[in-house]
Amino acid sequence: MRDDLIRVAHFNAAYADCIDHDELERLSAFFTDDCHYKITTWDNWRAGYPAGIVYLRGTGMLRDRISAMRNANVFEPHRYRHMLGLPSHVLREGNGLTARTPFSVFRIMQDGTTALFATGEYIDRFTEGGEHDLQLSERLVVCDSARMDTLLVIPL
Amino acid sequence: MRDDLIRVAHFNAAYADCIDHDELERLSAFFTDDCHYKITTWDNWRAGYPAGIVYLRGTGMLRDRISAMRNANVFEPHRYRHMLGLPSHVLREGNGLTARTPFSVFRIMQDGTTALFATGEYIDRFTEGGEHDLQLSERLVVCDSARMDTLLVIPL
Amino acid sequence: MRDDLIRVAHFNAAYADCIDHDELERLSAFFTDDCHYKITTWDNWRAGYPAGIVYLRGTGMLRDRISAMRNANVFEPHRYRHMLGLPSHVLREGNGLTARTPFSVFRIMQDGTTALFATGEYIDRFTEGGEHDLQLSERLVVCDSARMDTLLVIPL
Repeated sequence: MRDDLIRVAHFNAAYADCIDHDELERLSAFFTDDCHYKITTWDNWRAGYPAGIVYLRGTGMLRDRISAMRNANVFEPHRYRHMLGLPSHVLREGNGLTARTPFSVFRIMQDGTTALFATGEYIDRFTEGGEHDLQLSERLVVCDSARMDTLLVIPL
Repeated sequence: MRDDLIRVAHFNAAYADCIDHDELERLSAFFTDDCHYKITTWDNWRAGYPAGIVYLRGTGMLRDRISAMRNANVFEPHRYRHMLGLPSHVLREGNGLTARTPFSVFRIMQDGTTALFATGEYIDRFTEGGEHDLQLSERLVVCDSARMDTLLVIPL
Repeated sequence: MRDDLIRVAHFNAAYADCIDHDELERLSAFFTDDCHYKITTWDNWRAGYPAGIVYLRGTGMLRDRISAMRNANVFEPHRYRHMLGLPSHVLREGNGLTARTPFSVFRIMQDGTTALFATGEYIDRFTEGGEHDLQLSERLVVCDSARMDTLLVIPL
């Protein structure tokens, strides 16, 4: 089990590095083709509501969103810095793994202003394989606060 | 030694998850029956003073405190999000382990306001066994700042 | 590779502990004698500019700087609390390792005021050996924000 913990932590470090280095075109390699990627709030998740903020199905939608961000959306340039904890509840399930991992994300605006952007946790389902050793078949991003900034362009 | 580091980190991830998911009734499983749980400040700790903010002896007192929190105390509802570092100074001592682990804790109020609540480190003494593989015979929570919010209800 | 990841993470936890416990006289043990220690900003690093904020060459300069801090510099007393992520891009290169590791650093002033001081990442080159199992032949501290506080006395 501890070996799987390290595998998931290793995967997550590469995932965060990919986003924080603005290499979003490589992000789909962390997901299965028919993945679910959702962003919701803690209260919604606890109440059993479906994801309320973002819902992407499949890497095609993920790529579309990143492409829109690159080409169409108008927003103030910014970057993220992910700080991740170690996963807990790492369990084998079928030919994959489930785990949940706490995160905090700081946002750096172009003028250098840095602030806490979000805290929460990833609730994940992984399958074996892919260039990062594991692939997300589902990543549910549960944000602790319902006060989400409207400037949610870059994936968490 | 690196194996013990992973064991302690694994334990700490489960401990933080237990608190942040508000499953405090399960918290005593992380401690030995006659544990010491203390909260103090960096300055007090460095000066060799006894713990000044919270001192619980045994899981009975821990359960009492949680029960009081659930039933008696009146406070504005809030949650924590723990972000933990890896332990350092992981050493075998007798039939147990000692370690220290840096933490930062963010607090989420019911209206969604999120702020840094505390930083510091756990200075720990573990014994072997229990449902989490290790058990705390002593956890000294050393908070970096002496400016502690009076709203210290949930264990750190 | 996962074993090297743990080695680097273990090293980094000890490095952060050394600084946060104000044991800076022990810091040179984490570096090779002819190390490069640099602090720069994300924008400068991405543009390929040389390190702009701090550049120390060799543990002699590192010791001088710490000695100056202890004896000569006048500044408001403060401490850091490092929160580090796991390294990514851990690769073997020659008889050493390269890696990069995200960090956030909180600063605690003497009156207890605590605030986020910097986020960024270490871009490192390690050689084998030394009392911490690895030694930094190069640590490039890339700070996300160009808005660095002028009070940069303690090494990051």
